[in-house]
Amino acid sequence: MSAAFTLSIDAMGGDKAPDIVIKGVALAHIRYPNVQFQLHGDEAKLKPLLAQEKKLESCCTIRHTDQVVTNDAKPSQALRQGRNSSMWKAIEAVKNGEAAGVVSAGNTGALMAMARLILRSLPGIDRPAICALVPTRNGETAMLDLGANAECDARNLVEFAIMGECFARALLGLERPKVGLLNIGSEDLKGTHMLREVSQTLRESHLDLEFKGFVEGDDIAAGTVDVVVTDGFTGNVALKTAEGTAKLVFEFLRIAIKSSWIAKFGMLFAKPVILQVVARVDPRRYNGALFLGLNGIVVKSHGGTDAVGFANAIGNAVDMVSRDLNRHIALDLERLRAEQAAARPAPDVPPEAGLATQ
Amino acid sequence: MSAAFTLSIDAMGGDKAPDIVIKGVALAHIRYPNVQFQLHGDEAKLKPLLAQEKKLESCCTIRHTDQVVTNDAKPSQALRQGRNSSMWKAIEAVKNGEAAGVVSAGNTGALMAMARLILRSLPGIDRPAICALVPTRNGETAMLDLGANAECDARNLVEFAIMGECFARALLGLERPKVGLLNIGSEDLKGTHMLREVSQTLRESHLDLEFKGFVEGDDIAAGTVDVVVTDGFTGNVALKTAEGTAKLVFEFLRIAIKSSWIAKFGMLFAKPVILQVVARVDPRRYNGALFLGLNGIVVKSHGGTDAVGFANAIGNAVDMVSRDLNRHIALDLERLRAEQAAARPAPDVPPEAGLATQ
Repeated sequence: MSAAFTLSIDAMGGDKAPDIVIKGVALAHIRYPNVQFQLHGDEAKLKPLLAQEKKLESCCTIRHTDQVVTNDAKPSQALRQGRNSSMWKAIEAVKNGEAAGVVSAGNTGALMAMARLILRSLPGIDRPAICALVPTRNGETAMLDLGANAECDARNLVEFAIMGECFARALLGLERPKVGLLNIGSEDLKGTHMLREVSQTLRESHLDLEFKGFVEGDDIAAGTVDVVVTDGFTGNVALKTAEGTAKLVFEFLRIAIKSSWIAKFGMLFAKPVILQVVARVDPRRYNGALFLGLNGIVVKSHGGTDAVGFANAIGNAVDMVSRDLNRHIALDLERLRAEQAAARPAPDVPPEAGLATQ
Repeated sequence: MSAAFTLSIDAMGGDKAPDIVIKGVALAHIRYPNVQFQLHGDEAKLKPLLAQEKKLESCCTIRHTDQVVTNDAKPSQALRQGRNSSMWKAIEAVKNGEAAGVVSAGNTGALMAMARLILRSLPGIDRPAICALVPTRNGETAMLDLGANAECDARNLVEFAIMGECFARALLGLERPKVGLLNIGSEDLKGTHMLREVSQTLRESHLDLEFKGFVEGDDIAAGTVDVVVTDGFTGNVALKTAEGTAKLVFEFLRIAIKSSWIAKFGMLFAKPVILQVVARVDPRRYNGALFLGLNGIVVKSHGGTDAVGFANAIGNAVDMVSRDLNRHIALDLERLRAEQAAARPAPDVPPEAGLATQ
């Protein structure tokens, strides 16, 4: 049973909004009956949709605005012109304390830019990152950054490791998540100088995570670690490559089976379990990427998802709010900074003073 | 029917060398009866293996050396200590003109380092790259760099595009290969400044390639382009992620089918076509990565491959030699440099002279 709180919903974001958004909220309401929803969007469109879902009357309120951030809007443009948009208003509700988190299926770049401007980064976080779960042999693995930052430095990656670890603990319920740094070889000397620096920092820290060193592309699906840390360029390419590959394998299977009537006959019996496998790697199941490192819970749903996918994105927001993700991140960061400060020689004390006390 | 030439083989490279190497050569001999093989390695081990494959007597010669580059040797170490190794000698045979190309299943880093030192880069190529074919919806796509260069600049990527295009023309038989630059969005403004620079250079060039701009991770399996150009870090992660994902999907299928006797019954009929699909994405089929940009054809087989995979790697070497890959690369590079020189204002002419002629 989830605690009672309100989530703010950008009801106009996504390819099939607001229809699938409202249907997704209806599905989520069954799973989380205590959660209230503040729907930001065009009242004229939302009211008839809500009227079709009677059970939503008690848990939804509409906040009217007729402005929408389009899918092709550039982030800078959205920031300048979108202050009355459903996206902006939905994020603002978190800032104002009216909602504990926000879910949008709208334009990713605009959502990140607005969220950064309105909510600001958590103290000590240089750049927020996009994090999501991916299916693996052992269950699920959190991966970040998935595209917020095309270029990252060592500090960013260390912060991603901390945020990813807190995310895995909250969403996967792990006590000590195993964290790996994506590289092109698992030996200590592989990859760039920057990655070796990140590896050393994580290895020497006393954070509540199990740092497993470098992992490779095939370790993602193998589930070698619970958190895969990488820059937004590599993470985005890897995620889309994995999605494209899974799709290709299923398409090859479909074509091959269609080509043979014996195989088609066999599939009458094998189909149900094969559909289970399709469902197991279904992107809808993993829908709902977290924008980690902001002063507030922000969940980005895939723009082309359906009601099931949108409900899963809401589910991720509920988990993050319920488990107080951001407090955990802040505590971990504080610990790391304190360790780093203690490791540094105190700059105020003249060397003589140090010698005198020995 | 292939032309007559000699390939040099590092008979001791790879996890199961020299056994699978000799078996691979035997398979390749059936396909390419005109090709001669110079086997570099331990005569005491190679002779008995050759004795088992009578048909190889006429096409193989042994060049004895008992030194081997180990799999864990660092490139620098291999360069210092490996001058009598089977790998070094096999590459040297290309340099000396005794062989038209070399195939090795040994240590990748050592092979690249030795090949660069012995053969040198093609004139005008800053850095060689690793290129291989990957399975796609439409057939096969060439991807590079797959790990030779963890960090690349704009010049490297432009050269990779040229080399990849020549590779696709030679190996896939395409007249005007479609080339895409891997990015995290297909819009012109996405990604890093460096990628936009590469995109502009390729767009403005008059090379014999069709530049399709940016492609994303899922475009690899979709076969959107014939050549995917990226840095060695991203390419290596994407390739291994794709391999890991395909493996995961098949494993999920195996587990699901095993769990249901009805599905197992159905699989009696569907299995042959499903095995066809497994074969279609089988890494052995795509074994044999090219080291592009060197003064010589160098093919790297996967270290853990079997005889079928090794024979495919030899097949790639045969194709590259037969189609005179390096001459095509040199011609394309020359054309690009001439274009770039023509576009630049001539530096010798003082500005006044220019004004006077107007």
